[in-house]
Amino acid sequence: MAVAEKVARRRAAGDDMVVVVSAMSGETDRLLKLAASVHSDAPARELDVLLATGEQATIALLSIALARLGVAARSYTGSQVHIRTDNAHGKARILEIDSKRVRDDLKHGRVVVVAGFQGADHDGNITTLGRGGSDTTAVAMAAALHADECQIYTDVDGVYTTDPRIVPKARRLDRITDEEMLEMASLGAKVLQLRSVEFAGKYKVPLRVLSSFEDGPGTLITYEENDMEAPLISGIAFNRDEAKLTIRGVPDRPGIAAQILGEIGQANINVDMIVQNVGADGTTDFTFTVHRGDFKTAEEMLRRVAQALNAREVIGDDKIAKISIVGVGMRSHAGIAGTMFKTLAGEGINIQMISTSEIKISVVVDEKYLELGVRALHDAFRLDEPPATHPHARKAERASR
Amino acid sequence: MAVAEKVARRRAAGDDMVVVVSAMSGETDRLLKLAASVHSDAPARELDVLLATGEQATIALLSIALARLGVAARSYTGSQVHIRTDNAHGKARILEIDSKRVRDDLKHGRVVVVAGFQGADHDGNITTLGRGGSDTTAVAMAAALHADECQIYTDVDGVYTTDPRIVPKARRLDRITDEEMLEMASLGAKVLQLRSVEFAGKYKVPLRVLSSFEDGPGTLITYEENDMEAPLISGIAFNRDEAKLTIRGVPDRPGIAAQILGEIGQANINVDMIVQNVGADGTTDFTFTVHRGDFKTAEEMLRRVAQALNAREVIGDDKIAKISIVGVGMRSHAGIAGTMFKTLAGEGINIQMISTSEIKISVVVDEKYLELGVRALHDAFRLDEPPATHPHARKAERASR
Repeated sequence: MAVAEKVARRRAAGDDMVVVVSAMSGETDRLLKLAASVHSDAPARELDVLLATGEQATIALLSIALARLGVAARSYTGSQVHIRTDNAHGKARILEIDSKRVRDDLKHGRVVVVAGFQGADHDGNITTLGRGGSDTTAVAMAAALHADECQIYTDVDGVYTTDPRIVPKARRLDRITDEEMLEMASLGAKVLQLRSVEFAGKYKVPLRVLSSFEDGPGTLITYEENDMEAPLISGIAFNRDEAKLTIRGVPDRPGIAAQILGEIGQANINVDMIVQNVGADGTTDFTFTVHRGDFKTAEEMLRRVAQALNAREVIGDDKIAKISIVGVGMRSHAGIAGTMFKTLAGEGINIQMISTSEIKISVVVDEKYLELGVRALHDAFRLDEPPATHPHARKAERASR
Repeated sequence: MAVAEKVARRRAAGDDMVVVVSAMSGETDRLLKLAASVHSDAPARELDVLLATGEQATIALLSIALARLGVAARSYTGSQVHIRTDNAHGKARILEIDSKRVRDDLKHGRVVVVAGFQGADHDGNITTLGRGGSDTTAVAMAAALHADECQIYTDVDGVYTTDPRIVPKARRLDRITDEEMLEMASLGAKVLQLRSVEFAGKYKVPLRVLSSFEDGPGTLITYEENDMEAPLISGIAFNRDEAKLTIRGVPDRPGIAAQILGEIGQANINVDMIVQNVGADGTTDFTFTVHRGDFKTAEEMLRRVAQALNAREVIGDDKIAKISIVGVGMRSHAGIAGTMFKTLAGEGINIQMISTSEIKISVVVDEKYLELGVRALHDAFRLDEPPATHPHARKAERASR
C-alpha cells in the first residue's frame, strides 16, 4: 500500500502521526448495494453499523501494512477513540473527541490509525458522518490534538488558480485562506468537502491539501486575516451548471422578492445569484439563477407567478456560465472589479449579471465565452506568476494604508 | 434471508430473542486472504479488528432484513454489549457480559442481534474468540440472560446415534447429556464446537442443536445427572484418522512411559489412546495412537527411543479405526462392555486395543471392519428404537439400585 510507505517515511523522519482513513475505493457503494438488496428502506441506524465496517477494514489493513514495514501502529474505530457524535445516523456531527488514548499511543512512538467517517452517539450506537466525513474526522482529530498540521490526501496535488484543463498556465497555490477556499469550492473548484474546511476554520486547524499519488507540498489553507503573502486574487472559479430566469415588469413594492421566490424555495429549488433592477415605470426586473436540473420546473412556477402578478414577461436562459474571481486581497484593494469588467469587455464578452461579496466577484456570461473569459482574467491578474516574485510591493502597499 | 424469516416467526409467537450471528459464508476466509496479501505475519490485534467486520456486516444486514419484515431489531457488536474478554487476540476467552442494554431492548419488544465471535478486552481493544466463537458467544449471552434455551443452528438437524451415512437406521437423539456430547464430539461426531458445550455445561445453559435449513426439534443437551429418560447408550462415535504405534520389550520400570512419550509430546504430536501391558520376562509392551498425519514422524521418533532403550521392536499400523460407545447409563449398568465385546466377536472382528472412561468404551479395530462394527453395535444396543418406548423399565431399574 502506497499510503503505508508514505506514513513509514514520515515516521522515520520523526513525525508523530495520526492517520485517518476512508473505506477502500468502491467499498461503501458495495455495502450500500448489499443493504438495498435486503431492504429498500433500511433503518439508518443499521446502515451505519454496516457502512462502518468499510473504514474498520481499512484501519486494520493499513496497520498490518505498517507492521510489515516495521512501523508500530494501532488501529481504532471511531467509537474506540471516543469520537462522540449526535445521533443523526448517516449525517451525524462530531460533538467531542477524547484524545487521551491517542496521545498515549503517540507518546509510545506508535502511529495511530483511526477510522474516518464514523463515531458513536451518547448511548454507544455507531454513527456515520455522511459524505466527506473522513476529512471531518481528520480535522476534528487534529483540533483535539492541537496538531501542527492536518493533511488531506486527495486525487489532486493542491488548489489551483483555476482549472488547468481550461488554463494550462494555471498555478498551484502554496497557500489560500479558508474563506477563499470556501468561495472557490462552492463555486465549482471541488477539492475538499466544504464541511471539513468550515470545521477546520472553526478550530483554526492548519489544513494542507496534497496528492495521494505524487509527492509535493500541496496547498496550505491558512486563517491569517492579514497574511502579507496573500495574493490580491487567489483564483478564478467557474461553473456552467446554472440557468438564469428573469421576470420583467413586476410591481416595485415591498415583499415582491419573497412572493417570487417563495414558491420556488418551497419546491426545494436552490437559488444562487439574485439581481433586482428598478425600472423606469414603477416596475422592476428580477433575475436569479438555479441549478440547470431545476430549470424547467422553476420556469413553469415563475410563469404562474408572473400571471398572478400581472408581470410583463418571463425569460429563461440555460446557456449561461458563471465566472468568479476570489481573493481576500480585494478587501483592501479598490479597482479589482474594474479590472475584471474591462478585461471581459476587451474580449467582447457581455456581462449579463453581477454579484459581489466581500472576497469574490461573480459574473454571468454566455456559456460560449466561459473558457475565453477565464483565460483572459487569469492573464489579467497575472495568476501564473507566484506572488513571491513581488512580495515587497504588496507589503509596502499594505503598510502604507 | 431465511434466518430473518425464522426469527420473525418466533417473535410473532411471542418469544423474546437475542440472535447471535457469524460472518457470512466465506467472508472470514476472504478477510484472512486480504490480510495475508498485505503481510504474511499480520499483528494479531489488527487481524481481530479486520475479522470483526465480518460479523458486524451480518448483524446490520440481519437487522435490516428484520426491519423489512416489520420486526423491531437492534444490532450490537461485541464491544457494544460489553462482551469483555481477555486480551489473547484470535483466541480470546469471555470474562464477563454486561447484559443491561440487551435486557432493556428485550423489555421494549426488540429483537437483539449480536455479533458472535468477538468482544473487547479491558482496554477496549477488539478481540476475536477463534473458531467456533459464535457458538460460545451465544452460550455466554444465554447464561448472562438466564435464557430458557440457547439454540445453535447448524448444517445438521441434531445429534444422531451414529453417522447416518454408515447406519441408515441411525436415529436423531431428542436429548443427550453434555458429557455424552463431549465424548461424541471429540470422537468424531462433530456437530458443535467442544468449547461451547463445555461453556454451556459450566453455566448449565440448556443448549439445542437445530438445522438452519429444516424445521424440527433438534437435539437438546441436558445436564441432569440422573436423567430418567437418558438411554443406556446414547450413541456410537468412530474415526479413522488415527494410527497405532507399538514398542515391544521395553524394561518395565518407573518413568518408562514418560521417556517414551516425552519426545513425541515435545514435537507437539497429540497422543490419544495409551495402553500398556506387562510382559512375562520383566519387560513391557507399550501401544498408543496418534493422528495419522503425525504417524511417520512419530514412528521415526519411536525407533530412536527404542534403540536407546534397547527395546525388542517397533510396530506401526495406520490402517486402524476407533469405535466408541458413549452413554451416561453405563455408570450404573454393568455388562455393557461385555455386550460390546461379544457383539464384535460375533462378527469376527478382532479388538486390538481397549480404553475406557466413565461414560465411554473405545476399541481399536482393523480399519476394514469399521462399518461392520458400527452397524452391529447400533443393532445390539437397539439405538434405532427411541428410549421412550420402554421408559418404565429404565426407571424401575434405576429406582431399584
